[in-house]
Amino acid sequence: MADIKIVLDESEIPTHWYNVVADLPTTPAPYLGPDGKPVSPEAMTRIFPPALVEQEMTTERWIPIPEAVRDIYRLWRPSPMYRARRLEAVLGTPARIYYKYEGVSPGGSHKPNTAVAQAWYNKQAGIRKLSTETGAGQWGSSLAMAGAMLGIDVRVFMVRVSYEQKPFRRSMMETWGAKVFASPSTETESGRKVRAADPDCPGSLGIAISEAVEEAAANADTNYALGSVLNHVLLHQTVIGLEAKKQFEKVGDYPDVIIAPCGGGSNFGGITFPFLADKAAGRDLRLVAVEPASCPTLTKGHYAYDFGDTAGYTPMMQMYTLGHDFVPPGIHAGGLRYHGESPLVSLLYHEKIIEAIALPQLATFEAGVMFARAEGIIPAPEASHGVRAAIDEALRCKESGETKTIFVNLCGHGHFDMASYDRYFAGQLDDFAYPQEMIDAALDRLPRVDAA
Amino acid sequence: MADIKIVLDESEIPTHWYNVVADLPTTPAPYLGPDGKPVSPEAMTRIFPPALVEQEMTTERWIPIPEAVRDIYRLWRPSPMYRARRLEAVLGTPARIYYKYEGVSPGGSHKPNTAVAQAWYNKQAGIRKLSTETGAGQWGSSLAMAGAMLGIDVRVFMVRVSYEQKPFRRSMMETWGAKVFASPSTETESGRKVRAADPDCPGSLGIAISEAVEEAAANADTNYALGSVLNHVLLHQTVIGLEAKKQFEKVGDYPDVIIAPCGGGSNFGGITFPFLADKAAGRDLRLVAVEPASCPTLTKGHYAYDFGDTAGYTPMMQMYTLGHDFVPPGIHAGGLRYHGESPLVSLLYHEKIIEAIALPQLATFEAGVMFARAEGIIPAPEASHGVRAAIDEALRCKESGETKTIFVNLCGHGHFDMASYDRYFAGQLDDFAYPQEMIDAALDRLPRVDAA
Repeated sequence: MADIKIVLDESEIPTHWYNVVADLPTTPAPYLGPDGKPVSPEAMTRIFPPALVEQEMTTERWIPIPEAVRDIYRLWRPSPMYRARRLEAVLGTPARIYYKYEGVSPGGSHKPNTAVAQAWYNKQAGIRKLSTETGAGQWGSSLAMAGAMLGIDVRVFMVRVSYEQKPFRRSMMETWGAKVFASPSTETESGRKVRAADPDCPGSLGIAISEAVEEAAANADTNYALGSVLNHVLLHQTVIGLEAKKQFEKVGDYPDVIIAPCGGGSNFGGITFPFLADKAAGRDLRLVAVEPASCPTLTKGHYAYDFGDTAGYTPMMQMYTLGHDFVPPGIHAGGLRYHGESPLVSLLYHEKIIEAIALPQLATFEAGVMFARAEGIIPAPEASHGVRAAIDEALRCKESGETKTIFVNLCGHGHFDMASYDRYFAGQLDDFAYPQEMIDAALDRLPRVDAA
Repeated sequence: MADIKIVLDESEIPTHWYNVVADLPTTPAPYLGPDGKPVSPEAMTRIFPPALVEQEMTTERWIPIPEAVRDIYRLWRPSPMYRARRLEAVLGTPARIYYKYEGVSPGGSHKPNTAVAQAWYNKQAGIRKLSTETGAGQWGSSLAMAGAMLGIDVRVFMVRVSYEQKPFRRSMMETWGAKVFASPSTETESGRKVRAADPDCPGSLGIAISEAVEEAAANADTNYALGSVLNHVLLHQTVIGLEAKKQFEKVGDYPDVIIAPCGGGSNFGGITFPFLADKAAGRDLRLVAVEPASCPTLTKGHYAYDFGDTAGYTPMMQMYTLGHDFVPPGIHAGGLRYHGESPLVSLLYHEKIIEAIALPQLATFEAGVMFARAEGIIPAPEASHGVRAAIDEALRCKESGETKTIFVNLCGHGHFDMASYDRYFAGQLDDFAYPQEMIDAALDRLPRVDAA
């Protein structure tokens, strides 16, 4: 069997990122400050370097990737694309299933694609320290790696419950030289406040973001970096989809449906955005975001202005949200536990250009195990959401006899998630669908603004 | 910077394994049974399929790789080769450092290269179950993966101390469907005997081998599989060196020295054997095996006949050995804790065709951290032995001004070894050099045989 692993040469790493803002049907709504007015670029440079603020705001279609960033990309890019022939055989489907595998990066996920870019632009701007938050640890470890390579100190606020349950993600960050704090920490005012109120607080992504932003805002030599949601983060991830287009060309195929797990949106945007122009030009192509039923931001959330963090330190963004005080249940796909959603992905969903589905946890683990036994790679629980959706699509093709081409982004491996596989095998995981009445109630707590 | 990641297309996966026995200066000594007579192929088929027994004995230079095995290889092969430009810059060396990265396999090391081949030949022979031992877990998980793909039940006897300290390697094997037992177990006579004598026995690789061999010998539908030492295992690993030769051609370079960690020898043999013919033809090429100072089989062991396991169930093999009752200290490079050594690697060392060095543990961890911060990839502790030796060689080049080409096999990542990095950072690891008098004393306990 040929065409199982479709590789590109390092010379084929994209030279530009693709900015979907250039091709949107409507202009994205501006970010708003506490006064309800659009946030100025100058205000954003308090915690971001000018080049990233520009990328956040620009409508240019193609943004050149600095050669120094491409040089680091070469360590794992181009990432391989696979035809999942063994999985197809197990399913007995006439569909062709392809996956792009981002787990080959040293951090084990797609996150280094933007971590390296962000660290590099900060370095150029004379920044010596970056502060950030991490939940499951994939983002924190990716930024730690980028910091090690570019000579920037990285300080990571890691949600306390993850800090304790995932000690090896912490070890990984420390191996790359980062300082890691269990959040809420004693390092920041916001952390100390939470600890005073609740000494046993297990932490949340919202609290950790507040700590990291506070530290960056308070120190001139320190900036803030984040792993998803914002435009410039999704921009950097478009290398995934751009490479995939070349790989499909090489193999003489083209997807009918592209599937990707969707938490903050960087993985979904990274793989789908470069295909959007083809769809706009009339190509029959479905783009499906997959989220957990326990955190159904797109499928059940409100399209409204909301904060990116619990404390309300960030600007307000127009996006799908479950409410910034949303407390996600303790599911194991930590990367998908976020109350909000990328404004760009939200806009595309609102405009009905993309689709979204929500899946229960157990079905995703079942799919992860099936994938591991067929294809070898053990997916991260986040990635298993995409795998489940791809399997379901392939099984529908089996019913109908359609020979569709299904493409899924396998965004990371599960090497640091084996404890959740253990719990799955021991029957200790359950399904939790976030109740509609709780979501409806959150509507009353959203900030009141008039969109510009 | 070009030529950082040197990739091959899947069509360039080797079609044949290279059998170094065809090119050895002397004939390898036969394996001996308990009666001191050469073991017959028939006797070996009690626990191995005929095709693997034939590979173990053959002097044919090229052995065709079955297409079904190549099809599974496509999931991670050809593995990438890298020019370590970032590490070179950190060291300030004029040397060129390359590494071949086997951590891209789903098992995270080079072990699946032989696991898949062994499982396939057993499947062809009608075998339904494979039993094996594992220490650190890299081999056991690789065979578990191969079993999942080929429909063979895999039963793994995992050294108890590792079973308890490395629960996630166990989870990984279970995700691929294997049954894992802490060894000594109650599954076998030899296991029960050890437990009766010492209920708290932490286990050893020697005991686990005895359990796995006993189970295979006692059940007609069960065979035994092992991850190193024997000729056919090293044969399968030559895909590494064969690919590397193509990759060097592609980049227009050739190594002056090839470095690889050496435990049972499969990693070292896999990368170096395909280069041996060039050396024999007069090319100035050094081949350096790196072992831990705490388990200095080649550098301090005896070249003699000895058993492969503690209980003496295996045939006797002429090899470098520290004595089959050798108890390795608890270092963290579990894959290098073996009393013996591949007979083929032993012969080459005895004939002074290859070199060997022994390194202390702390220096290898220091090198692993340096490598991670420069190149991104966090090496397994076994792999860090090669990295340390490569760094030392590169630093000597810096002194002398030589522009040597150094090539090292990065045999696996450290994702399941982060606890040992933690202990390194906490200052809890130490160096232990196995004392010469203990090694000398082992000589008296070697089996007495007259080599044929």
